[in-house]
Amino acid sequence: MRAEILSIGTELLLGQIVDTNANFLAQQLPPLGLDLFYVSEIGDNLQRLSAAFRQALQRSDVIITSGGLGPTEDDLTREAIADVLGERPQVQPQLERDLREFFQRRGRTMPERNVKQATLIPSASVLPNPVGTAPGWWVEHDGKVIASMPGVPHEMHKMWEEQVQPRLARRISGGAIVSRILKLIGIGESNAEEVVGDLTHSINPTLATYAKSDGIHLRLTAKAATPSEAEALLDTFEPRVRERVAEWLYGTENDTLPMVVGAMLRERGLKLATAESATGGQLASLVTEAPGASDYFVAGYVAYSAEAKQALGVSPEILERHGTVAEATTQALAAAARKRAAADVAVATTGNAGPGASEDKPVGILHVVVDVDGRQVCSETRYSTTRTEYKRRGALDALYLLWRELKREA
Amino acid sequence: MRAEILSIGTELLLGQIVDTNANFLAQQLPPLGLDLFYVSEIGDNLQRLSAAFRQALQRSDVIITSGGLGPTEDDLTREAIADVLGERPQVQPQLERDLREFFQRRGRTMPERNVKQATLIPSASVLPNPVGTAPGWWVEHDGKVIASMPGVPHEMHKMWEEQVQPRLARRISGGAIVSRILKLIGIGESNAEEVVGDLTHSINPTLATYAKSDGIHLRLTAKAATPSEAEALLDTFEPRVRERVAEWLYGTENDTLPMVVGAMLRERGLKLATAESATGGQLASLVTEAPGASDYFVAGYVAYSAEAKQALGVSPEILERHGTVAEATTQALAAAARKRAAADVAVATTGNAGPGASEDKPVGILHVVVDVDGRQVCSETRYSTTRTEYKRRGALDALYLLWRELKREA
Repeated sequence: MRAEILSIGTELLLGQIVDTNANFLAQQLPPLGLDLFYVSEIGDNLQRLSAAFRQALQRSDVIITSGGLGPTEDDLTREAIADVLGERPQVQPQLERDLREFFQRRGRTMPERNVKQATLIPSASVLPNPVGTAPGWWVEHDGKVIASMPGVPHEMHKMWEEQVQPRLARRISGGAIVSRILKLIGIGESNAEEVVGDLTHSINPTLATYAKSDGIHLRLTAKAATPSEAEALLDTFEPRVRERVAEWLYGTENDTLPMVVGAMLRERGLKLATAESATGGQLASLVTEAPGASDYFVAGYVAYSAEAKQALGVSPEILERHGTVAEATTQALAAAARKRAAADVAVATTGNAGPGASEDKPVGILHVVVDVDGRQVCSETRYSTTRTEYKRRGALDALYLLWRELKREA
Repeated sequence: MRAEILSIGTELLLGQIVDTNANFLAQQLPPLGLDLFYVSEIGDNLQRLSAAFRQALQRSDVIITSGGLGPTEDDLTREAIADVLGERPQVQPQLERDLREFFQRRGRTMPERNVKQATLIPSASVLPNPVGTAPGWWVEHDGKVIASMPGVPHEMHKMWEEQVQPRLARRISGGAIVSRILKLIGIGESNAEEVVGDLTHSINPTLATYAKSDGIHLRLTAKAATPSEAEALLDTFEPRVRERVAEWLYGTENDTLPMVVGAMLRERGLKLATAESATGGQLASLVTEAPGASDYFVAGYVAYSAEAKQALGVSPEILERHGTVAEATTQALAAAARKRAAADVAVATTGNAGPGASEDKPVGILHVVVDVDGRQVCSETRYSTTRTEYKRRGALDALYLLWRELKREA
């Protein structure tokens, strides 16, 4: 079936925001068996919006929209749908009561213009919005579907997951379509595909790989008459996938690498210190992305200069002999940080984020050392990228090395 | 005049990449006097691409495309344009020589399929690509313009700035359109608009405000017969704008706040230390975004726990009396960091990035202290946002406070 996305809002056409909603939705459609052929950004203009809906109804089976459901005169998604279908929006008393209650619970009075968020047309039913004032519309007309959601990303995500995805799955497959995500780190996309091998040819469940900023995601998707039957299919399939990727598998669904590493440290009562030269604070910042990081993260040092490394406890002899960017220096830095912070585990980085190289410091080189109770592992990588991206990927790779060591010692 | 953007490539529709090109271009069009009414993402399919061009030629005056200019069979932008205009692409000998030389200079032989990147149709002229193999096409037909650029962002940006923007400016205004950017920090968008006041009503040059992740950008745009006349108009206008916003103005064009603050520190020979609790390394990471930060950034500390703060030199009495999140504690932390690092300037942060509040640590609170040679300034802010965004904005605000102090003391 053909799907089409309409991203609605003049702020998109003025370049004030990037259309991340379309990207989120584009990733959600293939597991449903929907082929996405068109994404359009349209401004808050009734004529152009109506034309976009008219065209979409001609060429696509499923139309998914975000934006234009707010209470102001500029919010015209409902009006455009009503216009194209020749139906009249009418206030729904129950919806209006819900809306007034939403404001009451927050100690506010509903502005009267918000009443338009309580309207429906005969072809539409409501998609509840538990986290905002704009309910969505689910419209069925002549065998086609329009699903309209708010533009605020977290409202849209929730409405997609709880309302639109299950309805589309029922409609398309006559049953349920359920997905699970497995997250890998330390392996590239083509290697990951090689490792899962023949499992990518499985028809139900299916297996797809995605290269993301935090590693490779595998999406396992099963179709069945009911959600629990689909889950049962996944319960059989998932262990087969896990077996192949165990070496790189760090989490599922909403897990993040900082959270997973943090949980391992917390569980074993290990305290962590970081000592960064090349990554300049990005590693500490990544570690502290996990809520509750203060349970195990005792100290982070950013030691950019030779003096700062020395002040932390790296000997002048090592700096003299190896320079500021070297495996031996990184080893000394990790040991010094662990000792200074009275931590059990330390991660250190040295390197050259660029721009500009010197003899022994080629641009893009990164040394990482993980020190667990004095046992050290080292890695050396060359990146060919921007300064910002070097720091981001370097910090992630350093955290990966720490995760691998903690996992190995488990 | 009506403009339309076509973002071309199946990877967009699979959600593998976010369409940042459309966002970049959307911001570039208003200064040219172009109204952007449509943005569409289209896959690598000749029929759908041709249909998109046909529709765009009907409803828009200027069509700007990115993507689909590569050498493979999937790259169909040229083919679709030729198809819609009923013209035949032909290899241009000079272009082919240039292309072969591009490969030669990199010590490689051009794959034969790349020859299609050396084709043109009669209505098209070449947009040179000095940083890649795909030249762009500039097409004029029936009073309409199609400008086709590569999808790789840095190639597209360069081709836009050097080729497409000046050509569009000449075509639209009969002359040149030149823009300058002024960057502000420490002021919100509506306040900035208030401060520049009547200058926003200026017709030529024009003045527009943009809220960005690193503050408010003001874009000054002048139209004139020649680029130098446009520059002259800006030379008169810019000081009038600068006068109004002097308090918040930190840079222009490609300046970043880390670079600007870094230059101030370097110039005065001041050494910087950071001591972070709440921002968890994000401030150090922001400081080290500036190339050459090792000239002035001597040490960064991430002191998440009370013990780590104490180890850095904060007295147990202060921690006991004020807790880990307090102005007094932040002051002590800044002083301790400055002393420990033997720095001239220190910036310290404490706060609660959430989730989860405790009595004296409401979620979202952030204390920042800047200490210059023992003279301290403090700020307290409440954020209502995610943990990641709290850290990002907190670090930026801390750097802003440092910039303001350095500026005040200049």
